[in-house]
Amino acid sequence: MASSGTSCGIKRGGKLDLGMIVLETPALWAGAFTRNGAAAPSVRWCRSLLGKRVSAIVVNSGNANACTGPAGSQAVERIATGASQALSRAPNEILVASTGPIGVPLPIEKIERHLPQAITDTSADTESFSKSILTTDTTLKRASARIGEATIVGVAKGAAMLAPNMATMLAFLATDAVLDPKSLALAVRGAVDKSFNRICVDACESTNDSVFLVATERSEEVDPHLFEKALTQVCWDLARQIVADAEGATKFVRVVVGGTESDADAVALGRAVAGSALWRAAVNGGDPNWGRVLAALGTIERSLPIERVRVSIGNEFVFDGRPVGSIEHATQSMSGREVVVTCEVGHGPGSAEVLTSDLSATYVELNAGGMS
Amino acid sequence: MASSGTSCGIKRGGKLDLGMIVLETPALWAGAFTRNGAAAPSVRWCRSLLGKRVSAIVVNSGNANACTGPAGSQAVERIATGASQALSRAPNEILVASTGPIGVPLPIEKIERHLPQAITDTSADTESFSKSILTTDTTLKRASARIGEATIVGVAKGAAMLAPNMATMLAFLATDAVLDPKSLALAVRGAVDKSFNRICVDACESTNDSVFLVATERSEEVDPHLFEKALTQVCWDLARQIVADAEGATKFVRVVVGGTESDADAVALGRAVAGSALWRAAVNGGDPNWGRVLAALGTIERSLPIERVRVSIGNEFVFDGRPVGSIEHATQSMSGREVVVTCEVGHGPGSAEVLTSDLSATYVELNAGGMS
Repeated sequence: MASSGTSCGIKRGGKLDLGMIVLETPALWAGAFTRNGAAAPSVRWCRSLLGKRVSAIVVNSGNANACTGPAGSQAVERIATGASQALSRAPNEILVASTGPIGVPLPIEKIERHLPQAITDTSADTESFSKSILTTDTTLKRASARIGEATIVGVAKGAAMLAPNMATMLAFLATDAVLDPKSLALAVRGAVDKSFNRICVDACESTNDSVFLVATERSEEVDPHLFEKALTQVCWDLARQIVADAEGATKFVRVVVGGTESDADAVALGRAVAGSALWRAAVNGGDPNWGRVLAALGTIERSLPIERVRVSIGNEFVFDGRPVGSIEHATQSMSGREVVVTCEVGHGPGSAEVLTSDLSATYVELNAGGMS
Repeated sequence: MASSGTSCGIKRGGKLDLGMIVLETPALWAGAFTRNGAAAPSVRWCRSLLGKRVSAIVVNSGNANACTGPAGSQAVERIATGASQALSRAPNEILVASTGPIGVPLPIEKIERHLPQAITDTSADTESFSKSILTTDTTLKRASARIGEATIVGVAKGAAMLAPNMATMLAFLATDAVLDPKSLALAVRGAVDKSFNRICVDACESTNDSVFLVATERSEEVDPHLFEKALTQVCWDLARQIVADAEGATKFVRVVVGGTESDADAVALGRAVAGSALWRAAVNGGDPNWGRVLAALGTIERSLPIERVRVSIGNEFVFDGRPVGSIEHATQSMSGREVVVTCEVGHGPGSAEVLTSDLSATYVELNAGGMS
């Protein structure tokens, strides 16, 4: 497996905007995609290839090729055809992903013209590829894990339009472990559910979210359970990096929910807190406004047993069926980069951690222009 | 019926923060309240009085008395007891409402001390009362309508934590029309559903939302259908005023959805657009980023027939199954205070209009501090 990142001219100033992953031989893969009804044609294309083996992944940044009409679907087919010809493989072995503004016609000729160079440039180094998929990201996101002799490596990009159901994000994962296709698919579903589906930056679900895992089967056979655990670790690591680099973020916020009947209940409550613009604005100001946390919980749990709910910010309990603790201490515990808010809502066995960032004026400014 | 607005010292600087409405004789009433699981004790108190006649409404601003533990519930009872003694009525004839920061103990003595004065100050003029209920509002919100000889008058406050399920808002409505209790209750439910439930500023549902309608029965009997229509008009007028004065708002945004199977479907889609932080940030920058509108629709309608969807901004069609029209014209149509985005998603008979504002850096700044 080799990858490259080149510049095809979608982004200004010669920035890397065309990424390519090439498999030496057609490989097993599994994926997870946005459920958005306005999903980009690249997402629809990749979904149609689930269950088949793939030879390459082509990804462009700087343009989402979403809501671009029939021309958008044609562009995806042209990318697949162009890459398959340059690689002497079949078009339906080419996965395609895009990220960037929605609704802007994709300059398909630019991509087509640079596909041969992108293939020529591929190497074992993942840095150029990692850079080529970025949009408003300011950091590279990479993670890896080992299961015995086998490895998992992953790269990802954020950084806004991050909603509970994945995020405006792309993640590319590869493993040399040997697994059957069904275990691979289950591992992706499980890992995404416990990682990328537990981050929420602006509660805006994207049209292009895609997670890919390719399996080259070059290493040893692994236990599917251990594999899913390692994959979850890699995805959680990438998810943390995405949230830490969210648009306009000055804080990294961990929302920990416990005491629910199920983990799914805890995730739902955690997402509500993580998606609260008011709580996130308070975090931006370093204000321990825990009332907004309770109000967010109350939107999900209509019969919240508020007299039994406990909330802490950092190490300071601020609510225990009534206001407790010291607002000064809670304020202090918000002064660092990482803010932890913990909510115990009952005595059940369920728990979950959901990640978000603060809502800053910079986020608004970053998203107030761009199309016109 | 008479009202007053006085200062009891919850807000700084002698600002009006205690409102009082007194009915000459115990009156029929109906109401609608937040469904938040962390609902304030005043909301729980008022719900328990549905179906009974009421003699007065006491409302304070500057403190929500929400998530304040047992002391919060006791405070509501003390307000009801204090007002009932001063008026020589029963405590369970006194409705109570609060608005302001969550989680701050209510200075109940300040309210108790000023209840007699608040009653003495009542008059036919509603201006002081309208002022006393404001928080970050910058304008008074008042509306009225006639049905034959009968009238409906209403006042309201906003201005953030405005979610689809009502909003952080209080509305006080009164009518002299004669209706049976059931018609009154149905009219409130119908009017709220078509007005306050169709505004969405930050998608944060409040703990204190309350709408009250009292009926003095001093005028003539009215047709319940005509009454509900007039009440809806008054509530829609107030809802518009609330959104126009939303925290940090520089734009008034009308999201019009049509072509759905039902009005309820259109409301759900409209709320998704109105609740999109990304679309609202684009509006703030005057950027016709209609891709974010489609992405928001796609979060609700998982099988959105995108090839048949039409979107216009102002008078410019920007999407008709593919990008169309002129971004320049669309940008121009966003230059005024009012922005209209229209989404036709099919050929069904359903439609709805949902109101929101833009997301500004000022909103973030207004909400970044306060508690500490």
